[in-house]
Amino acid sequence: MKTLTVNLPGRAYDIVCGRGLLDRAGELLRPVLRGDLAVIVTDSNVEPLYAARLARSLHGAGFRAAILEIPPGEQSKTPEVLAELWEQMADLGITRSDSVIALGGGVVGDLSGFAAATILRGVSFVQIPTTLLAQVDSSVGGKVAVDLEAGKNLAGAFYQPKMVLMDPDTLKTLPDREFRCGMAEVIKYGCIRDRALFDRLAEDGGRERVMAHVEEILLRCCDIKRQVVEQDEMDTGLRMLLNFGHTLGHVYERAYGYERYNHGEAVAAGMTAAAGLGTLLGVTPEGVRGEIEALLRQYGLPTSIAAGQKDYAAALTKDKKSDGGQISFVVLREIGRAETVKLEKAKLLDLIREAGL
Amino acid sequence: MKTLTVNLPGRAYDIVCGRGLLDRAGELLRPVLRGDLAVIVTDSNVEPLYAARLARSLHGAGFRAAILEIPPGEQSKTPEVLAELWEQMADLGITRSDSVIALGGGVVGDLSGFAAATILRGVSFVQIPTTLLAQVDSSVGGKVAVDLEAGKNLAGAFYQPKMVLMDPDTLKTLPDREFRCGMAEVIKYGCIRDRALFDRLAEDGGRERVMAHVEEILLRCCDIKRQVVEQDEMDTGLRMLLNFGHTLGHVYERAYGYERYNHGEAVAAGMTAAAGLGTLLGVTPEGVRGEIEALLRQYGLPTSIAAGQKDYAAALTKDKKSDGGQISFVVLREIGRAETVKLEKAKLLDLIREAGL
Repeated sequence: MKTLTVNLPGRAYDIVCGRGLLDRAGELLRPVLRGDLAVIVTDSNVEPLYAARLARSLHGAGFRAAILEIPPGEQSKTPEVLAELWEQMADLGITRSDSVIALGGGVVGDLSGFAAATILRGVSFVQIPTTLLAQVDSSVGGKVAVDLEAGKNLAGAFYQPKMVLMDPDTLKTLPDREFRCGMAEVIKYGCIRDRALFDRLAEDGGRERVMAHVEEILLRCCDIKRQVVEQDEMDTGLRMLLNFGHTLGHVYERAYGYERYNHGEAVAAGMTAAAGLGTLLGVTPEGVRGEIEALLRQYGLPTSIAAGQKDYAAALTKDKKSDGGQISFVVLREIGRAETVKLEKAKLLDLIREAGL
Repeated sequence: MKTLTVNLPGRAYDIVCGRGLLDRAGELLRPVLRGDLAVIVTDSNVEPLYAARLARSLHGAGFRAAILEIPPGEQSKTPEVLAELWEQMADLGITRSDSVIALGGGVVGDLSGFAAATILRGVSFVQIPTTLLAQVDSSVGGKVAVDLEAGKNLAGAFYQPKMVLMDPDTLKTLPDREFRCGMAEVIKYGCIRDRALFDRLAEDGGRERVMAHVEEILLRCCDIKRQVVEQDEMDTGLRMLLNFGHTLGHVYERAYGYERYNHGEAVAAGMTAAAGLGTLLGVTPEGVRGEIEALLRQYGLPTSIAAGQKDYAAALTKDKKSDGGQISFVVLREIGRAETVKLEKAKLLDLIREAGL
């Protein structure tokens, strides 16, 4: 069991990672949660696998555990399902000293985190991510949200958990496609901040060898995210670096109605596209795009996704990272080092056309 | 024009009060808002009275102003209307540097404040309260929320505005019943913190004389709330004093489906009931209840509302101020000095029975 501490002013919290942790959740959480009631929010894929084990561990530590189940997938991340969670939590008689525990992937974490941030104006929140994507990305950093019709994550909050518990054993039940999806974010960390991680992933080359030292990889990714979030909790600057591949990734997700490509696949294609645009901008060296493509291929991820100029234009207009007519776009100075350039949206669209994306 | 500054760590903001301020909103807001777009949220009662004037003033200061209108009354303070506002703001192309301006009473302020706190994870927010209740209470303090089926204000956030602008002239169009409703909160400030205010209200005796020096009264009430909020932004202790009359007030509102009695009327009856219970608890001197009743009568407010034991029990179970089985109940040591007692809910219900409430 290894621990990383995220130091935010007045709200430090631990990310704890270790095989078999799920059965020790109760004892680990007891010191950081005040109330008796712990509301577990999970989805109907994860519920039969892990909810009863978690509830048992919580009971053993003196908690009352309630389980709220949502349908799996992004289509649950809506204001309507949020309102249902609010009503269900109120019906459970939740009080300000009680807590909400997210058990599942990014959708469960984002949605239940937003519910925790807002029910009774905020109760304690714990993340127990069970997917690779959630473990390396969405469970750390305090961003919680629901999607709107106009776009993903458009309504939400910054809300830090009291603890993040990761049990790498939960990854064993993860479908291959979901594992690949998480790998796209792992590769992103290599691209923006850690050449050695990037090289190690190239050496591993696949799921089996990654799983042999997955704790180390999870902690490395979380540590990078921790450093960035500590310096920029409210996402006003540095944190944008985590967005490498995401600006165009969101275009691809959106262009196919969030159905054909999952988040990681879209981000994978977004990273190669961003590497190409970085070269057109004179920032990214020529060979970088090829290196990223080769690594993505090793992990079965797409290296490009077709989209039309209308898709790019429509999605960029809704981008949360936009500020007036400008957009912050993340490019690589080299593999392991990212930076942000501010561009007019029109200029970015020109470059996209020039790059033949 | 008078200004009070609310000093919260990193987020100080001004409460500005003066007759005719509505027409100067643009120039006053320009220094504190970054973006170009200002989304005015108002209701269909207030829109025809003041929205065009506000929009004109904003245009004059270089803002683009959009107006979003909701139906009037508490029935709009729902997750559904919140989600509609989110979608409308997204459709307007709101960016993180833009702002939301609440123009109206408490429902408009609470709902649009929650929307501002959460759209794109938070944009700038301004309160322009047009009712007495909103001016002395809900527009200051940063509590924003929607109601759930299980109770009022059960989902929300703490979110401070960039500025609060009060134009006492907007009170001229306020229906008498709404004015009385606000007076209940004004009287509450006298009860909990300011004997001189209490006495002055008794001397004034009615709307006309209050309006002659209403700026002074507004600023006095806001200053009391400012002091309390500065010391306890997140509502963990001192701020509970503002809840005098509200614990039972919520029972009365709820018992009649939030229809027969408005917030102020329910709080009025809640204050006299709390004074009586305070006497049973040995804290409140005998004559206090009578003094409060006399003042409430001068302002046409009810001094008691009938409710059954079931109503009390059901509402207290849902009270946000409850923590496990305990409830924080506010009583008066004397007029002008309030304090909190922690009670088991069962004990409070016993006292309510003993008092014949």
